[in-house]
Amino acid sequence: MTEFSEWFHNILEEAEIIDQRYPVKGMHVWMPHGFMIRKNTLKILRRILDRDHEEVLFPLLVPEDELAKEAIHVKGFEDEVYWVTHGGLSQLQRKLALRPTSETVMYPMFALWVRSHTDLPMRFYQVVNTFRYETKHTRPLIRVREITTFKEAHTIHATASEAEEQVERAVEIYKEFFDSLGIPYLITRRPPWDKFPGSEYTVAFDTLMPDGKTLQIGTVHNLGQTFARTFEIKFETPDGDHEYVHQTCYGLSDRVIASVIAIHGDESGLCLPPEVAAHQVVIVPIIFKKAAEEVMEACRDLRSRLEAAGFRVHLDDRDIRAGRKYYEWEMRGVPLRVEIGPRDLEKGAAVISRRDTGEKVTADLQGIEETLRELMDDILENLRTGAWERMESEIREAETLEEASRIIDEKRGIISFMWCGEEECGMDVEEKVRVDILGIQEGGSGTCINCGREAPYRAYLARTY
Amino acid sequence: MTEFSEWFHNILEEAEIIDQRYPVKGMHVWMPHGFMIRKNTLKILRRILDRDHEEVLFPLLVPEDELAKEAIHVKGFEDEVYWVTHGGLSQLQRKLALRPTSETVMYPMFALWVRSHTDLPMRFYQVVNTFRYETKHTRPLIRVREITTFKEAHTIHATASEAEEQVERAVEIYKEFFDSLGIPYLITRRPPWDKFPGSEYTVAFDTLMPDGKTLQIGTVHNLGQTFARTFEIKFETPDGDHEYVHQTCYGLSDRVIASVIAIHGDESGLCLPPEVAAHQVVIVPIIFKKAAEEVMEACRDLRSRLEAAGFRVHLDDRDIRAGRKYYEWEMRGVPLRVEIGPRDLEKGAAVISRRDTGEKVTADLQGIEETLRELMDDILENLRTGAWERMESEIREAETLEEASRIIDEKRGIISFMWCGEEECGMDVEEKVRVDILGIQEGGSGTCINCGREAPYRAYLARTY
Repeated sequence: MTEFSEWFHNILEEAEIIDQRYPVKGMHVWMPHGFMIRKNTLKILRRILDRDHEEVLFPLLVPEDELAKEAIHVKGFEDEVYWVTHGGLSQLQRKLALRPTSETVMYPMFALWVRSHTDLPMRFYQVVNTFRYETKHTRPLIRVREITTFKEAHTIHATASEAEEQVERAVEIYKEFFDSLGIPYLITRRPPWDKFPGSEYTVAFDTLMPDGKTLQIGTVHNLGQTFARTFEIKFETPDGDHEYVHQTCYGLSDRVIASVIAIHGDESGLCLPPEVAAHQVVIVPIIFKKAAEEVMEACRDLRSRLEAAGFRVHLDDRDIRAGRKYYEWEMRGVPLRVEIGPRDLEKGAAVISRRDTGEKVTADLQGIEETLRELMDDILENLRTGAWERMESEIREAETLEEASRIIDEKRGIISFMWCGEEECGMDVEEKVRVDILGIQEGGSGTCINCGREAPYRAYLARTY
Repeated sequence: MTEFSEWFHNILEEAEIIDQRYPVKGMHVWMPHGFMIRKNTLKILRRILDRDHEEVLFPLLVPEDELAKEAIHVKGFEDEVYWVTHGGLSQLQRKLALRPTSETVMYPMFALWVRSHTDLPMRFYQVVNTFRYETKHTRPLIRVREITTFKEAHTIHATASEAEEQVERAVEIYKEFFDSLGIPYLITRRPPWDKFPGSEYTVAFDTLMPDGKTLQIGTVHNLGQTFARTFEIKFETPDGDHEYVHQTCYGLSDRVIASVIAIHGDESGLCLPPEVAAHQVVIVPIIFKKAAEEVMEACRDLRSRLEAAGFRVHLDDRDIRAGRKYYEWEMRGVPLRVEIGPRDLEKGAAVISRRDTGEKVTADLQGIEETLRELMDDILENLRTGAWERMESEIREAETLEEASRIIDEKRGIISFMWCGEEECGMDVEEKVRVDILGIQEGGSGTCINCGREAPYRAYLARTY
């Protein structure tokens, strides 16, 4: 569906989110408006993580020997690591990789930080840029060579069951996060051939883009003791023994913002959840010759009141037609527009217009803060419900592989089916339908769509980004 | 003075600011406590800049040809640029530099962004990591290979006088910023041989470290039209002509935090201005058998109240001796400690202890928020005044070069003298005293310390970091 692709490309430009003209493929510029949306999104994430995680910041560059230590892990990244080989005019003695992710950056330090069982659990996160030398077609915010907004959390535990519990907690954290953005998600365990290199298993969040392809928007990995053994991360137990720790990590990227833009946007442009919108309310004075100064005065007064009440508000007092203002602010996704004209003013009222539904209501200027706040809550709720409904209507059950193929070809979306869980059978499914298995969920029963054996798993297929 | 160097090294470790053991020279890890101080410092900076600057985020990697475009500029950085030469296993067609600073990253885009005089002025900033392949001895936060906290602002103007004005505004911005950290500064114009490569002139902020060496903590550059010509940044004037823009840029780094630590710290450890402290108030219950539960209850109650009032507060309810708690929180620089014991409680009071002076006052629990707030203001004021007095007492006037040499050798600090302003004479001064000229200030009159000619400038010499 080229329409979505084109729409996405255009809205990033027109709404000044990202400038795609930077002269290196797959690397882009966050423009002021995009940066504000990014900043507000990170604020939500930090509010959730800061409850029981500590924010840190590790170096960008990984020495070659550290990166190479964990063999399976490095294998997963070696084709896409950027290498620094020179400092000034001289060759470095040891090549340095730009972090593709930070396990090999952090874990040598964790080996120094972890001492005793009383230190555990430890939960850290950082928000950084990471690099992947993508050979595939790049696309801003979705498939890039510089991931500018990589949030990675890394946790350390004394026991396997505590690490398992942390995986569940991380899933809850991401649910809360995506819920506050109104982004629907399908949570599955990735098939073994698609798990994070070096992990025991990977739980992934996928969402459905408007073109019917899924986008991976978050992953949670149980690392078991693999990295602990590689990097010698041990702790002293209450009995004085020394044991390897158990670890998890979980990450999000710029794709979160891609999904907010893509899933809530419409033909008029962006449609932003109020918590991430750069401006939550824009005030547009309706000026005629009559009472022009009184109207402006009332608008300025309202702006001060809303600012004081904590709204991100903008008064658009430019000397251009109101229609053009409406067009621009709708395109930029501002959730609420307040218009004040002379007749409204006489009644002590204003007209509030919702970006999501286009509805207009007249509200008393007195106490308008409360009205706006309720509308903002309602907008998020409405965006969320709508997005979930659209995604769920695109999840279709298939009984046979032929049916799965046909649905994917005709409608895209997500196919739900029963699967035995055997790797060989799964590979076979992917080959026959020529579409990836997203992942599985436990529970349910039936027979495998491919081999006909008993199937304890519900699995999902989709074309993916 | 090895004592300062040792003190600084130790406090970064003991107060868990930075972990210096990362296995690449000159690259370090921000630990949770350090990260919070960094975050609070950036918050102040953003509050000031956001008034009339827009935050953006540009890519890390600069194509070789863009970096090479501005000849003087690249000359200034070529010895210290890190080069990415490989992606995965294949050699890149075009080498990519890790930004040492972002002129050559941003300005090709500015050429696309600037169209008309109505677009100007534009004021942007970003907070990013930058890289310098330092061959000198590295030192955490002071001389590093990954500058993790580089705040760079870049502005674009229609006229030379507006660019000059912006330089003055940037100086005011940095004054306000350093004042809120209580950091004293000497503002000078750098001598021509020490200006930013490619700029017309550089105004610098230096502070004095406890070992008597100065540290450059901020710079403001008037770039004139040099980069505009190189990158073809033009705007259409009201008359329809196309003219090159005038630009400025100004930057700060991790050194801001180094100076906060170094200048306010003492033999007990950190001493933090309240606005940057990770915790502003720590509550320590004084527990005896008697009334233990009541005391804890009162402490928890106070914590809730202070949190609600916006303080960053921590209740230290660990089961260890109060003395050890005092030691730790003093070392970590918490501005205010509140102790509550059974006898205080009977009187409805608490004992407040100041980190900066060690003074103790008894305060009513009722209304303690107000008392704490006043004390915090007073602490910043006291730290600032003390730091300014110490720096000013280390600025000494010299009439002859011999006197300058002698003072530098005996006392370090900063030497103030009159100078003719001729480059050759200045080089001669630096050679004879074997100390750098920091910079000059206009005004004053006298005869040049070296050549005896008329001297319109006051200049400063110091050993520098």
